[in-house]
Amino acid sequence: MAGAFAAGRLAAPDAEPVSGAVASYPFRGERQAGIVTPAQDRLHFVALDVTTDDRDRLVALLEAWTEAAERMTRGTSAGPVGAVDGPGNAPPDDTGEALDLPPSGLTVTFGFGPSLFADADGNDRFGIAERRPAALERLPRFSADVLDPARSDGDICIQACADDPQVAVHAIRNLVRIGFGTTAVRWSQLGFGRTSTTSRSQSTPRNLFGFKDGTANIKAEEAAALDQHVWVGADDDPNAAWLAGGSYLVTRRINMTIEVWDRQSLDAQEQFVGRTKGTGAPLSGGEEFSVPDFDIRGSAGPLIPVDAHVRVVHPRAHDNVRMLRRGYNFVDGSNDVGGLDAGLFFIAYVRDPRTHFIPLQRAMSKTDALMEYLRFTGQALFAVPPGVGEGEYVGQALFA
Amino acid sequence: MAGAFAAGRLAAPDAEPVSGAVASYPFRGERQAGIVTPAQDRLHFVALDVTTDDRDRLVALLEAWTEAAERMTRGTSAGPVGAVDGPGNAPPDDTGEALDLPPSGLTVTFGFGPSLFADADGNDRFGIAERRPAALERLPRFSADVLDPARSDGDICIQACADDPQVAVHAIRNLVRIGFGTTAVRWSQLGFGRTSTTSRSQSTPRNLFGFKDGTANIKAEEAAALDQHVWVGADDDPNAAWLAGGSYLVTRRINMTIEVWDRQSLDAQEQFVGRTKGTGAPLSGGEEFSVPDFDIRGSAGPLIPVDAHVRVVHPRAHDNVRMLRRGYNFVDGSNDVGGLDAGLFFIAYVRDPRTHFIPLQRAMSKTDALMEYLRFTGQALFAVPPGVGEGEYVGQALFA
Repeated sequence: MAGAFAAGRLAAPDAEPVSGAVASYPFRGERQAGIVTPAQDRLHFVALDVTTDDRDRLVALLEAWTEAAERMTRGTSAGPVGAVDGPGNAPPDDTGEALDLPPSGLTVTFGFGPSLFADADGNDRFGIAERRPAALERLPRFSADVLDPARSDGDICIQACADDPQVAVHAIRNLVRIGFGTTAVRWSQLGFGRTSTTSRSQSTPRNLFGFKDGTANIKAEEAAALDQHVWVGADDDPNAAWLAGGSYLVTRRINMTIEVWDRQSLDAQEQFVGRTKGTGAPLSGGEEFSVPDFDIRGSAGPLIPVDAHVRVVHPRAHDNVRMLRRGYNFVDGSNDVGGLDAGLFFIAYVRDPRTHFIPLQRAMSKTDALMEYLRFTGQALFAVPPGVGEGEYVGQALFA
Repeated sequence: MAGAFAAGRLAAPDAEPVSGAVASYPFRGERQAGIVTPAQDRLHFVALDVTTDDRDRLVALLEAWTEAAERMTRGTSAGPVGAVDGPGNAPPDDTGEALDLPPSGLTVTFGFGPSLFADADGNDRFGIAERRPAALERLPRFSADVLDPARSDGDICIQACADDPQVAVHAIRNLVRIGFGTTAVRWSQLGFGRTSTTSRSQSTPRNLFGFKDGTANIKAEEAAALDQHVWVGADDDPNAAWLAGGSYLVTRRINMTIEVWDRQSLDAQEQFVGRTKGTGAPLSGGEEFSVPDFDIRGSAGPLIPVDAHVRVVHPRAHDNVRMLRRGYNFVDGSNDVGGLDAGLFFIAYVRDPRTHFIPLQRAMSKTDALMEYLRFTGQALFAVPPGVGEGEYVGQALFA
């Protein structure tokens, strides 16, 4: 598969924006769109379970999803006869709520969870168990996690990002509709404010702690860093050549106890994070993009405290690994203690979760000062295959 | 109070947009903003319960909310020392996540529920029982309702609408924060796509059935219709002079069984609604804004079926009453049958719910063909006081 791209069979390089609300990113390409694509404002993410053991039906669904996703990213209906111009005696093959809306920068990104390769009883339902990447194991529970199984894991994930939430919802809703009888929704998550940038052309947004988030994120322009930290290499896993050029997608649903956070002093908030709230500069000085100096000491100890978030998860402490983050803020109604059910839906793309995510999360769960204000309520890991060539369906190399 | 406006004491007429993302609507005026204001794209709605019996504390909160809401609708922080420029040893008086974001057309609209006037035991906690409007009673349960008490009712509501969801969430989050110790969140709802227009300058959006919604809505430009159907008249209720110039706000959380709907033929969908899916024209012919002709018959009966939604709720069937709708689409994750927890968060402003809402809902619940695809999971009614004059706080006439 990877060879096909090297041979120049594909016309389109990775996603390039057109303009504003009419931005349109090609679905097919060397990589799946929605990873280094400049982070859109809105997210609808769904995890599905496959409800059949029929491999042919699963493959047929991946083919149908590929066609529908490509159509919708162009701003057209999910199917060829649309929402309103089909025969009256048949259900429309598009649900219609995005009629007349522009593509709005829609990207649709697919991933495969560990359970697709072997179910809870170890059954190889689809004859792909031998191709399971060694790194694609159910994530461990981290200390202090309060994971809700109904918000965790899944056989397949679909991430839809767009600048109009109705467009993102329309995409997921139609893909779920097409999957009816073959897949069922396990969980889904809406996000409304991106918390990371993936391009130098974007300014850094803020999470619900009010701080800039993702300042040190890998950007689309850092080709060498992407190869080193995000894209799975051709020789990374002999069992999973199909994943070369793809990535791993980690999700963590992070509830923030915002009502408690809001009662902390500004100084305390900045000490927890290790950056100033205003500009996002590290407490060691400079401006947002200045490199934190963890050695500078003030009269009361290091200017960046030993348990500050920026220090605990900094690449310096983790063999210089980095990740490409793509999270979104969420508010899901209210909780049962008179507050808002709010936080950060963390999404990261990494080359290997064993080196690029799990050690950082372990360190964070154990020592990060922010942990007092966080509750981890869901998580999942998916292998994200590389891009889809002309005439192919998403994940084809896994099933071919 | 109403006289003050008539005397021209207020400079600002009702909300007028400035432009795009920097649109800013004044908080103070003859009416509260967020009713006839051109419907913004995003909603965060919260219902709160008052957790104290101390009238002075409640009044102090209304004063603080008024100040904060006015500041935020101008695009500034919720409090005077902001998120990042206060003393370091105190909590900031703004949570910071909307720093640098423009006003985004934010409006903040307050309402009072029946339970504020008398609690479940009939106690007049705040000395305002005698001023309860006769129409402000807990809504009845309608046939087929499956109401969740945790998504229904409330002492106070706050509707925040904006073109950026982070701005709407920031507003509600800060008002909830300011209310800590006096109020607690009872329920909240995010909405992402407006389903009605309130101005002739807006095109009609679509609900999650894929149909245009709100075609016949009262528009801001229809001053006589607003006086007749939306604004409470000076003589409507002798017990509640404080509400003159205000309105009643009805919410209904309407889950759509979209997976079932999506399997219905286009013809069937159009028969249920009574309009075409493409243009929104009534099945009796014409274009979107053509008046439905309920008398035209085809070979199989009326072109607009007797149980079509447009016929059942049409003003012709209800003494020509109309309402100003301001609903939003929502998706709240997934349900327990492998689908999306999605639908319409119905909001309507009416002069009197006894004449302008309850009869229509009764008719709809009993005879509307759409009911097969709807589940009503929450509802509430609030009295929305008129606008806030200079130097006043919201609802002041109720407590004065």
